[in-house]
Amino acid sequence: MTRFADALAAIVGRENLFEQGAIDDRYRHSMGRKYVGAPAYVARPGNTAEISAILRAANDARVPVTALGGGTGVVGGATALPGGLVLSLERMRRIEEVDSNSLTMIAESGVTIQAAHEAAEAQQLFFPLDLGARGTATIGGAIGTNAGGNRVIRWGMMRDMVLGLEAVLADGSVVSALGKAVKDNAGYNWKHLLIGSEGTLGIVTRAVLRLRPRPLTTATALLAIDSFESVVSVLRHLEAALPGTLSAFEVMWDNFYELVTRANAAKRDRPLPLGHRHYVLVESLGSDPVADPGRFEAVLGEILSKGWAADAVIAQSPRDSERLWAVREDLMEPLSALWPMFAFDVSMPLTAMPQFVDRASAGIRAAFPDATILIYGHLGDGNLHLVTKVGRADEEAEHIVDSAVYDVVGELGGSISAEHGVGLMKREFLSRTRSPAEIQMMRRIKSALDPNGILNPDKIFSPLT
Amino acid sequence: MTRFADALAAIVGRENLFEQGAIDDRYRHSMGRKYVGAPAYVARPGNTAEISAILRAANDARVPVTALGGGTGVVGGATALPGGLVLSLERMRRIEEVDSNSLTMIAESGVTIQAAHEAAEAQQLFFPLDLGARGTATIGGAIGTNAGGNRVIRWGMMRDMVLGLEAVLADGSVVSALGKAVKDNAGYNWKHLLIGSEGTLGIVTRAVLRLRPRPLTTATALLAIDSFESVVSVLRHLEAALPGTLSAFEVMWDNFYELVTRANAAKRDRPLPLGHRHYVLVESLGSDPVADPGRFEAVLGEILSKGWAADAVIAQSPRDSERLWAVREDLMEPLSALWPMFAFDVSMPLTAMPQFVDRASAGIRAAFPDATILIYGHLGDGNLHLVTKVGRADEEAEHIVDSAVYDVVGELGGSISAEHGVGLMKREFLSRTRSPAEIQMMRRIKSALDPNGILNPDKIFSPLT
Repeated sequence: MTRFADALAAIVGRENLFEQGAIDDRYRHSMGRKYVGAPAYVARPGNTAEISAILRAANDARVPVTALGGGTGVVGGATALPGGLVLSLERMRRIEEVDSNSLTMIAESGVTIQAAHEAAEAQQLFFPLDLGARGTATIGGAIGTNAGGNRVIRWGMMRDMVLGLEAVLADGSVVSALGKAVKDNAGYNWKHLLIGSEGTLGIVTRAVLRLRPRPLTTATALLAIDSFESVVSVLRHLEAALPGTLSAFEVMWDNFYELVTRANAAKRDRPLPLGHRHYVLVESLGSDPVADPGRFEAVLGEILSKGWAADAVIAQSPRDSERLWAVREDLMEPLSALWPMFAFDVSMPLTAMPQFVDRASAGIRAAFPDATILIYGHLGDGNLHLVTKVGRADEEAEHIVDSAVYDVVGELGGSISAEHGVGLMKREFLSRTRSPAEIQMMRRIKSALDPNGILNPDKIFSPLT
Repeated sequence: MTRFADALAAIVGRENLFEQGAIDDRYRHSMGRKYVGAPAYVARPGNTAEISAILRAANDARVPVTALGGGTGVVGGATALPGGLVLSLERMRRIEEVDSNSLTMIAESGVTIQAAHEAAEAQQLFFPLDLGARGTATIGGAIGTNAGGNRVIRWGMMRDMVLGLEAVLADGSVVSALGKAVKDNAGYNWKHLLIGSEGTLGIVTRAVLRLRPRPLTTATALLAIDSFESVVSVLRHLEAALPGTLSAFEVMWDNFYELVTRANAAKRDRPLPLGHRHYVLVESLGSDPVADPGRFEAVLGEILSKGWAADAVIAQSPRDSERLWAVREDLMEPLSALWPMFAFDVSMPLTAMPQFVDRASAGIRAAFPDATILIYGHLGDGNLHLVTKVGRADEEAEHIVDSAVYDVVGELGGSISAEHGVGLMKREFLSRTRSPAEIQMMRRIKSALDPNGILNPDKIFSPLT
């Protein structure tokens, strides 16, 4: 046992420290198993004070530290460096308070998204962040990556739900601003700097989350739309006509819809026939059980009568609603058919999307004529996902495909990461949508707050030299 | 003319440079005339490249630079240091684009809030930020201070309306991220760090603003409510019952209402009688001309029938609506009667407000038994304004009153500034609601991005030594 390990054991107890060969696989692998970490230590602290002591020790010993939440990230952001320390938040699962007057929840960073949902619901409240990995992904991970998900169009991203934050910096100092007010303009908003910084500037320990009144009605529909222009018209019409209730607008391109509904055909029928260019899942969460259903039907009627949508189906029951969501979310089997694949998560101005789809597809097909390319995404947020199987999975193929996609994103004024983050996966391409001046600014901030470079130092950009 | 002045003249032209005695008073005084700057230079650049050149020169010459927008700030944030340079954005008033597909506007930082409103309206769109100083306050100033205003409850603060940002850092480097997408998780979000940094980290030159569909209906009401508990019940009921349309919830304590309606009695009648503890202005901006008015009336009916409100008046015309808003906004004469006064802008958890009002008032009255104390604010945001006249305006009196208010705010987990910022006025009290570790973190960031301390170096905290 090294002196550093002794120090860790003294902080967290021997039962919460694992070393080398005794480290379980789940601390090494991230989702998709593409990135494999090589930690020398895993520590499972129980509170903020222990994390502070761990970081002080790591900073003194110059041991790199990678925080680990639910491990559902897809860009290698939680992959430990060789010889490094994995700081697992799995023991920090306390929900310390749900305040139904202030509409706030105080949660430790290891709390899962689903546990936060349930704690809010128990008080007739609502925590809006939602994504497929809800049962495993944690509040701390969602903060570290500024998670998005399905309801950004209405409630924003994780950053919009964090009122207060507590974190430990590289030198062990604890910054704590667990205020419950929406407004706080007293000095720099370091909270927003830490959110989305992928564990490179500080380790989030607790957060004050903003809750909302629980919606009382749910309306779900699937629309078939034959041109991208009409998709935009429908989005704008829904935003104007259902301003406070529109909560999802998920667009699927034709081949995504076809693949998913075919792969899941044994489980459920296809809700609308093939043959249209786009399929759009619309959700509206309201509070008026009397008026909401009629309003939703009337608005969809307008959309059909204007000719924007060619066909539509409205869920008549919660089971119906689940069946429609499954087209967008039950992707396990459909995507496994595409393995090995490359997946992208990019954003851009809405108007640039048709051009992006054409040019990125053409770029991929120039190298791989038989590539399968599926496109879907959160259109209202400017966010598209592109998944492609080109028949190869080697590094050269990856680089060709990455370049084909990211070059176009850069030229169209977009971002290489809408919601997944940069991690290890997109590091090489950060400069496609961030200028040298911006990256220089980020490095200066990193260097000021973590001068020894111990916090996840190989993520987002290559380590400071 | 100094060598520095020569350099400035070469950049902006002699007609856009003023020195010493030739500097107009408006470049020295901020609103309220409490803080008087002593600039040696005023430069009026016309574009980002000129600002970059100016900052390079100022950084070399170690001349402090203070950006000036509309000059409507109230905390001395735009007060120039002796011998410093005022960088006035008054020539940068171009609205470069309104994109009705992406719902975005690209504006230079000298554009006024009102000009942004008008440009959006010309395209049937809506820029939600609104505050009393709209005709003079600028986009750059609103970004520098993260302005709030009357509609935060629905659309958030300025930070929530900025999709893309361009700024010049202390060394003249231009960071530009004028993307239009809601989502961008590629690296640190420096945009949020600059927003609200009061010109101490960079000078904002352009922004991509998020627009919304223009609301089609307006409903306004004034309610009389006899307990704070009922005020909270009404707020929660409105949030749940009008989830996407509730756009203002402005609470006035009894003596504020009495003073304002008495001072303005010659101009308009008092809309509700005196004698209640709270008066609440409610606004709902919707999109359904058929259903919205009935829905609003029904919800207010529920509030009256539950006994939460004792009385209510609903505006029947735009003129009515203006008359109700005047109770909250026509403060020129009412507040002039309170001169000299001390004004506060604090935030805290909703549940702490009654305690804050009692304890802060008691603290002020312990020193000044005859103090007049008025309280009003944006309750849904946790934001209260407190205005007091104690009969003295000297520094000792100011310190006593400041301490009485900020001590309580600190103890209740609030913030010394909800929306006005810190500037010079609240610098001394930053540590009441920010810990040493937080202030240390802010200083490290300041030092990393502005190592020579040329950007508004005496604001927020005292200069680095």
